[in-house]
Amino acid sequence: MSHIDELVKIAGKDSICTEQAELMCYAYDSSLDSQLNKYMPDAVFTPRSAEAIPPVLKYCNEHKIPVVPRGAGTGQCGGSVASGGGLVIDVSALNRVIEVDTDNLQVIIEPGVVHADLNQQLAPLGFSFPPDPGSTKMATIGGMISYNASGMRAMKYGTTREYVLGLEVVLADGRIITTGGMNCHSLKTASGYELTKLFVGSEGTLGIITKARLKIMPLPEKKGIAVAAFKELGDAGKAVVEVFRNKIVPSAIEILDKSAIKAATMYKPSIKLPDNAAAVLFFEVDGPPPGVAYQAQKVAEVCKPIAMEVNWTDDPAQVKSLWEARSVVGAASGRVRPGATRVYIGEDICVPITNVGAALEGIQAIGKKYNTIIVTYGHVADGNFHSAPVIDLESQEEIERVKKVGDEIHEMALKLNGTVTGEHGVGIVRAKYMEREHGPALDVMRTIKHALDPNNILNPGKMGL
Amino acid sequence: MSHIDELVKIAGKDSICTEQAELMCYAYDSSLDSQLNKYMPDAVFTPRSAEAIPPVLKYCNEHKIPVVPRGAGTGQCGGSVASGGGLVIDVSALNRVIEVDTDNLQVIIEPGVVHADLNQQLAPLGFSFPPDPGSTKMATIGGMISYNASGMRAMKYGTTREYVLGLEVVLADGRIITTGGMNCHSLKTASGYELTKLFVGSEGTLGIITKARLKIMPLPEKKGIAVAAFKELGDAGKAVVEVFRNKIVPSAIEILDKSAIKAATMYKPSIKLPDNAAAVLFFEVDGPPPGVAYQAQKVAEVCKPIAMEVNWTDDPAQVKSLWEARSVVGAASGRVRPGATRVYIGEDICVPITNVGAALEGIQAIGKKYNTIIVTYGHVADGNFHSAPVIDLESQEEIERVKKVGDEIHEMALKLNGTVTGEHGVGIVRAKYMEREHGPALDVMRTIKHALDPNNILNPGKMGL
Repeated sequence: MSHIDELVKIAGKDSICTEQAELMCYAYDSSLDSQLNKYMPDAVFTPRSAEAIPPVLKYCNEHKIPVVPRGAGTGQCGGSVASGGGLVIDVSALNRVIEVDTDNLQVIIEPGVVHADLNQQLAPLGFSFPPDPGSTKMATIGGMISYNASGMRAMKYGTTREYVLGLEVVLADGRIITTGGMNCHSLKTASGYELTKLFVGSEGTLGIITKARLKIMPLPEKKGIAVAAFKELGDAGKAVVEVFRNKIVPSAIEILDKSAIKAATMYKPSIKLPDNAAAVLFFEVDGPPPGVAYQAQKVAEVCKPIAMEVNWTDDPAQVKSLWEARSVVGAASGRVRPGATRVYIGEDICVPITNVGAALEGIQAIGKKYNTIIVTYGHVADGNFHSAPVIDLESQEEIERVKKVGDEIHEMALKLNGTVTGEHGVGIVRAKYMEREHGPALDVMRTIKHALDPNNILNPGKMGL
Repeated sequence: MSHIDELVKIAGKDSICTEQAELMCYAYDSSLDSQLNKYMPDAVFTPRSAEAIPPVLKYCNEHKIPVVPRGAGTGQCGGSVASGGGLVIDVSALNRVIEVDTDNLQVIIEPGVVHADLNQQLAPLGFSFPPDPGSTKMATIGGMISYNASGMRAMKYGTTREYVLGLEVVLADGRIITTGGMNCHSLKTASGYELTKLFVGSEGTLGIITKARLKIMPLPEKKGIAVAAFKELGDAGKAVVEVFRNKIVPSAIEILDKSAIKAATMYKPSIKLPDNAAAVLFFEVDGPPPGVAYQAQKVAEVCKPIAMEVNWTDDPAQVKSLWEARSVVGAASGRVRPGATRVYIGEDICVPITNVGAALEGIQAIGKKYNTIIVTYGHVADGNFHSAPVIDLESQEEIERVKKVGDEIHEMALKLNGTVTGEHGVGIVRAKYMEREHGPALDVMRTIKHALDPNNILNPGKMGL
C-alpha cells in the first residue's frame, strides 16, 4: 500500500488531496523562485482540527516523508512550498479565535486565523495585536509567527515574536508540547528555556504550530503624521537620527525613494509629492491625544532645517490623506512599467539606521547596473526595505538579470552590517546566505534542528540548515 | 597533576583562585537556600578578557568539570552558585562598554557591566536601556540577560530579552559563536533560528556570554504619577483592567498590599498612606509632556469610582514625593520585625492580571497559616509579585516553616495560571517545579541542553534540566 493510501487511512479521505490541479495551488508562494520553479507537493493534508495532526506527523516521521506547513501562502521566500516533494499541511482551516481575554491582555488563536480578522474582532473592544504586515487581509497569524513578520510598527511596538506568549506545537514525532507553561496565562515569565521565541521564526522546521497565545495591547487613542521631503537620501537618514535624539519614538517611519515617489504619482496623479525629492519620509506618531499633536509638530520642527518641505497634522481626515502616498506604493510599484510585473527577490533587507542612505543608493546603483527598474520603500525606523524589481516575466534574459539583482542586494545588506531579511524569512531563496550571515552559529542551529527533528522531515531544505 | 594546576597553566596564576576565604564569597547569592547551604566551588576563575575563556571551557569539557558563570551574585534563585562543586567563572571584570552607537539605537557591552553604570553613561546622551531591575546599582547586565530580568516597566517596554539584539557566546566545547548575525547591527531580523532569545534566560546552561549587543531607546521626556488607595484587593485588580480598557498603557503599575503599606509607614513615618487601605496602586505614565498630564489625570478619573482616594501629578518634585512609598518598600520590608531578616524564597511569582487579587489574598493566607510575616509588593501591570517573608534566621523552626511558605506560594502561582518566576529565574530553588509548569516541553529543553552541552558541564543541576 502506498504512503498516500496510508495517510488517507489515518487522516480521512476528505483531508488528503492528490488532485494535480489542486496541488498546483500549493506549488508556489509570492517568491519569484517558486513562481518559476513550481514545487509540486505529492499531497496536501488539510486538517479540520489540531488533533488530526499528530498521527499524520508520526507516520511521516516513521517513513521519512517531508512535511511542509502552510497558511495562506503569502510568503515571499519559498518557505511554504514542498521544494523536495512530500506532504503540505494546509492549516488555514484551523482558524478559530479560541479565547479573547482583554482583561488579561491576551488571546488564544489557531494558526489559520487571518491577521485582519483578529484585529477586526479586537478593534470594537479597544484592543489590537500590534504587528501589522502589509498583507494583513490575507496573511495568517501562523505564518506571521513562523517567519517573525512585523511590518511598519516594529521599532516602537516590536515584532510578532514579542507578542507570542506561548505556543502549542506538534513535534516531528507527533508529541505535543505547550511552550511558555502548560497552563500559564501570565504576561511574562523567567521559567525554563524560552522555547516560544525559538519556535517563532523557525519556519516550520522544528514543529507544527497548532495554537498560539498572543499578547494584545490597548489601541492608541489617536494618531498623527508628519511628512517630510528631502533633496538628498543622506538627509532623510539624518532626520531619522535627529527625531530619536529629540526623544520622539514614532509608531512608524516610512520612506519612499525617488522611484517609489514616481510610482505613487503615476498610480494616482492626485497624490502631490515633490518630483525633485530624493526621498519622502512619513512619520506616524500615536498615543494620548495631546501628546500626538506635540510629537507630530516636534518631528516637523526637527526635520525643517534638513528637509525641502514638511507638513504635519493630527486631524484624522488629513492624516488619512497624507498617508495615502505611502499606502498605495505597494500596489503602485507594479505599474511603473506597463505590461511588466513586480517580482519578489532581494525584497527584504534590513540595515542599521545610519546605513539607510547607503542602502538606498546601493539599490539604485544595482538597478542601473542591471538595467532593471526597482521601486524601493520601507520601514526606515528599523532600516528594513522592500525593494521591488519590475520585470517582463516573459523574458528569460530579464529573469536571469533580476536574479543577479537579488544576489547583489543581499550581498550589499551583509556588507552594510545588515541582514538579508528583516521580516520575510529565509525559506529556500535566502538559504545560500546563511553561512555568511551567521558563521559558526549556523552549526548551532543545525545541532538544534537535528536534535528535535532527527529524520529531517519538517520543512527540509529551508533556512540553510 | 591536578585539574587546578592545569587550569592555572592555561589561565594564569592570577586568574585562578582556590583560597577558602575567597571561595566562600562565591558560595551563595541572595537566595535563602544558598545562604543556608553555602555551595563552595572548588575554584574561581576570573578572566581579564573574553579570550581567556574558551581554552578553560575546552579543558573543563574534556574533563567534565562543572562550570558556573557568575556576575555580581545578586540573583535570588541560586543560579550562580556551584551546587555540585566545580569552577565558578566570575565575569565581573569583563565590564567594558565596548561601543555606544546612539544613532543606531544600540550599544555593545561585556557581561560584567553593572546596569546603573550603563544607564548613567547613556542618560546625558538622552538614551537608556529600558529594563530596570530593583538591583540596578549592583546587578550586571550579563546576569540580567541570563535570567531575563525586567523590573517594573516590562508591560510597556518589555523584558531584557526584547532588548538583546545579539550575543557572543562561548559554547561548552570552547567554540565561539555570534548570535543575531556575525556582523549584523540592524534592529530586527528574520534570518535563522532566534538563538539570541534562547540564550537569554538560559541561566548559563548553554554557554558563557562574553558580549551583548543591546537595543537602547530615547528617554521619555516626562513622567507623571497617579496614586490610588483601595478598600478591597479585588478593586485594585479592577482598576488595572479599567485603565487598560481606557487605552492608557502606564510605564509601571506598582502595588503595595496592607503589609507593605505598614512596612513603608513604619520605615518612614512621614510617608502618608491610608492605614485602612487593602492596597495602594502607583501608576507611572511617561512620554511627551502634554500626554503625560492627560494620562495621569485619566488614570485618576478611571480609579475614582473604585478607589478610596486618588492623587495625580506631573510635577517632577511631587512625582518624586508620591513615588517615595514605592521606592522604600524593598528596604522597609526587612524592618517590620526588629532583629529579623527578609529572606528570598517564593519571591517572584507572576499571575494573570485578573488573578492579582486572588494571589495577594493567597499570600496573606499562607503567611497566616504558617504564622510568618510576609510583606508583598509587585509589578502588577504584568502580575509579578515580590513577597518578602521576614523571619528569625537563628530559628531552625522558622526556617522550616518559611520553606513551606515558599512551596505553597509557588504551588498557588501554578494553580492561578501563573508561573513560579516572573523575572528572577529558576536556578536550584525552583528546579523542582519545572516538570509541573512545563510538562512535556521540559523534555524539549533537556534535548536542547544535551545537544549543546553533551557532557553537562555548564551550570549543571539548574533549571530542572
